[in-house]
Amino acid sequence: MITDPHISSAFDRDLEAVQALIMKMGGMVEAAILDAAQALETRDEELAEQVRRGDAAIDALEERIHAEAARLIALRSPTATDLRTVLTVMKIAAALERCGDYAKNLAKRSLALGQMPTVGDSAGSIRRMAKTVELLLKDALDSYIQRDAHLAAEVRQRDREVDQMYNALFREFLTHMMEDPRNITACMHLHFIAKNIERMGDHSTAIAEQVIYLVTGALPGDPRPKEDLATGPLSAKGGR
Amino acid sequence: MITDPHISSAFDRDLEAVQALIMKMGGMVEAAILDAAQALETRDEELAEQVRRGDAAIDALEERIHAEAARLIALRSPTATDLRTVLTVMKIAAALERCGDYAKNLAKRSLALGQMPTVGDSAGSIRRMAKTVELLLKDALDSYIQRDAHLAAEVRQRDREVDQMYNALFREFLTHMMEDPRNITACMHLHFIAKNIERMGDHSTAIAEQVIYLVTGALPGDPRPKEDLATGPLSAKGGR
Repeated sequence: MITDPHISSAFDRDLEAVQALIMKMGGMVEAAILDAAQALETRDEELAEQVRRGDAAIDALEERIHAEAARLIALRSPTATDLRTVLTVMKIAAALERCGDYAKNLAKRSLALGQMPTVGDSAGSIRRMAKTVELLLKDALDSYIQRDAHLAAEVRQRDREVDQMYNALFREFLTHMMEDPRNITACMHLHFIAKNIERMGDHSTAIAEQVIYLVTGALPGDPRPKEDLATGPLSAKGGR
Repeated sequence: MITDPHISSAFDRDLEAVQALIMKMGGMVEAAILDAAQALETRDEELAEQVRRGDAAIDALEERIHAEAARLIALRSPTATDLRTVLTVMKIAAALERCGDYAKNLAKRSLALGQMPTVGDSAGSIRRMAKTVELLLKDALDSYIQRDAHLAAEVRQRDREVDQMYNALFREFLTHMMEDPRNITACMHLHFIAKNIERMGDHSTAIAEQVIYLVTGALPGDPRPKEDLATGPLSAKGGR
């Protein structure tokens, strides 16, 4: 509806500023994921503490993005695709904030696990899973910045790998617990960590789906290729 | 800044419409929590299926609230407290959506658990915990509608009870798993369920904190009274 190029470009300029904050936040969350996983593997208490404390800055950035996006709506009154874009920015910020929380939780649990005997090479497997998810999140954010529906669709597909890694770890933990009850407490922590990394993958997928909606105007047609409880290892163990 | 009473009341009218949707969404989420917990205790597959399918309607309502709140900002250009109120509505809707997801997950896990032997009276304990959280969520939403900072502060305090219930259940599950490895798979499900209910309590607390901020203009001064990993049973078991 707005044809004045000055008003239009003011919106674009404001949007770019908010998007720069999103990329900054994305970088912080990616670093937190990798650092937390590394702290777990190398039993680096200082690094874990750093991730734990660093989450406050991520939360503050989400607040700021939320407020600036709202101000953008109030000032520029965007409609149609522009409004949808700003709402997508808010959703991406919320998804990143959740991922930051999970990284913080990973760091806290790695501090607790540092006092327990190791369980096989599970910390190494978790670090590899975290690396996979970090790349997924990075590509999900890139697909937003570039409005690249193909890359977003690829992110959705690749989340399957993360689900498979989680399922494999879950079986591994069950085996360790059944073999030796002294592993149970550590495995409970490790299982939560694996589950939370898998959830970061889900958030990356959710970002990718927002991008597909933004670019194509339609949500992905096929059901999300997530391997959930109905087909996952839990229900198999349950004999369903 | 806006002094025209017509514009001011148009905002209030629009806000009330969005708030009605929030209360409707709250009612749906509360019912989902109670139904899912009951389905777990009575092994009612049909009820669990109903909760699982019902989550789509909760998700759709969040989308609608998000869109209407954005439209409200675009149309009425609220500032200061009014803008903060609309942003709070969006955050409450997002928190409710998460709680709906947890209820759905509870329902899915109860379907898997229906095929396994029961573990003590854990399903009864979980139902009581779910009831406590449902009341907490209800009061958090009421504190928003009534802009009641006292009720919101009470919700924050009462979340401690939920944390304690979770901690007690966690110890119970550990004991069952160590006593008999055949309980391990069921206990992993039950532990996730308990953790997710505890997270619903956290979301209720987050809503209460938004209300306190909205009413008093300041975030609660004392640190959130959450019993987290640092003082909880996990780290105690870890010898920290």
